[in-house]
Amino acid sequence: MMLIDRLNERIMACKAPICVGLDPVLESIPAVYFADGASEVEAIYAFNQDVIDAVCDLVPAVKPQIAFYELFGSAGIACYERTIAYAKRKGLFVITDAKRNDIGNTAMAYAKAHLGEGSPLEVDFLTVSPFLGEESLVPFIDVCKAEDKGIFILVRTSNAGNRMVQDAQNANGCTVSETLAEYIRQQAGACLGESGYSAIGAVVGATYPQEAETLRKAMPASLFLVPGYGAQGGGAEDVVPCFNADGLGAVVNSSRGILYSYADKHCSREEYKTSVVAATKAMQQDIYGALRGSYPDIKY
Amino acid sequence: MMLIDRLNERIMACKAPICVGLDPVLESIPAVYFADGASEVEAIYAFNQDVIDAVCDLVPAVKPQIAFYELFGSAGIACYERTIAYAKRKGLFVITDAKRNDIGNTAMAYAKAHLGEGSPLEVDFLTVSPFLGEESLVPFIDVCKAEDKGIFILVRTSNAGNRMVQDAQNANGCTVSETLAEYIRQQAGACLGESGYSAIGAVVGATYPQEAETLRKAMPASLFLVPGYGAQGGGAEDVVPCFNADGLGAVVNSSRGILYSYADKHCSREEYKTSVVAATKAMQQDIYGALRGSYPDIKY
Repeated sequence: MMLIDRLNERIMACKAPICVGLDPVLESIPAVYFADGASEVEAIYAFNQDVIDAVCDLVPAVKPQIAFYELFGSAGIACYERTIAYAKRKGLFVITDAKRNDIGNTAMAYAKAHLGEGSPLEVDFLTVSPFLGEESLVPFIDVCKAEDKGIFILVRTSNAGNRMVQDAQNANGCTVSETLAEYIRQQAGACLGESGYSAIGAVVGATYPQEAETLRKAMPASLFLVPGYGAQGGGAEDVVPCFNADGLGAVVNSSRGILYSYADKHCSREEYKTSVVAATKAMQQDIYGALRGSYPDIKY
Repeated sequence: MMLIDRLNERIMACKAPICVGLDPVLESIPAVYFADGASEVEAIYAFNQDVIDAVCDLVPAVKPQIAFYELFGSAGIACYERTIAYAKRKGLFVITDAKRNDIGNTAMAYAKAHLGEGSPLEVDFLTVSPFLGEESLVPFIDVCKAEDKGIFILVRTSNAGNRMVQDAQNANGCTVSETLAEYIRQQAGACLGESGYSAIGAVVGATYPQEAETLRKAMPASLFLVPGYGAQGGGAEDVVPCFNADGLGAVVNSSRGILYSYADKHCSREEYKTSVVAATKAMQQDIYGALRGSYPDIKY
């Protein structure tokens, strides 16, 4: 069974087209993780373990943001390696948010680093930036095809300032976002699973529901990774247009809204995990409820 | 003395507005570095040391491409840390080619990771991708201002396929590249050194000399990082328009043309270093000769 089909199966089993961001920010992590003289990266790893334990039966995937690990150099990347290994052991799919981009053998090095079999950083999905154009995406797509992996190409990001680049128009009148969507549609067939979905996906922000509807039609088979829910202002109604009528086709991310939902900085690890479970369940009910309300033909 | 002024001083002292790319590709590294059972990252570090020793008196800067280190996970990033430390000890400026981009506190994490004082990955300059728009560049510019560091924002990359994104036009008729150039011009004043140059710079490929001329006029104070010379097809005449008439304003990179210029895969380390010195000197003469030929008012 292909990666995309296994992910869709887990989404349906959990009734949760959701991933939880693993964005460790030292100032926001409860004090208990720094007890007993734990180093910064030790604290982050223990924190990540608790988040993973709390969510692994509730959602199909986690999304570490690699910048927060890179901040600690090689020790941070070692912590990241342990984190993704732990998430995989707990049955979670791992989506690395790295927005990598380059050309030629450099792009291939990034693709192999994050998606290549046996690489220390190997995960299931990677976010990719398209600033260097189509040819910069080819090495990533090639690795996806060869190794049954997935990518999410930035098409419409959740931030207001994206328009300077993403709304600019090509000679044929299509915006950069629309041009990328058409390119992804063309590529999606190559990595198509039995579920009818493709692991060549797109990042589409929850903050632009009208555009999400257009992009959904433009890339019917592609999986969308949807940032912007919760702390960034997107609600459940806003993410609904990112989905197809079967309730599939998108994975909505929440990071801060789940990780930092706890009430007391001096909570215990058990109390912290309880807050993560509660916030994740609330998000699941919010998203799933909106989907069921909008799509009578939902498959789960 | 500010970073940009110190760099310009070294460029003039070396008569070499040049940086050498540190892009270790295992298949291309001479066999001697793998002798005595050296691991892949040990081989890369020894290789990098020899390149650095060979070029440190000839050029002002090296440019490691971080993808080739990320490929080996945390061990690769540890090798990268040792490499940048060694380059700094040898008096070289370090430009990290990472093309990082994100928004908010994630962008800030990348900026602090690569440019923050005391970070394990701290270097002098970082390449930054602008796909998420102006607001995604602000955290990097803020760190440059606060810590006297520099960035090169991708404006016109050296690859043919860049046009899908970089040639798209905004509502005012300006292309994405032109819009970014205007933004950089506005920001450059904040990080201006006594030499009249700014550490808020741009990546402008050597493969588009006509556009380089236009972009040079649009961003008169910004330092350009110029890829595409040598192996990618750009010649010395093509990079001349990236410079101002004083012979400053650009740093031309060569990676493969220098690192893999050796004739015999089974050369000794001394023979390898000799080939690196010869290729670097040839590039210096090529670029410096073209600049002297074009700019009678060159300052060095």
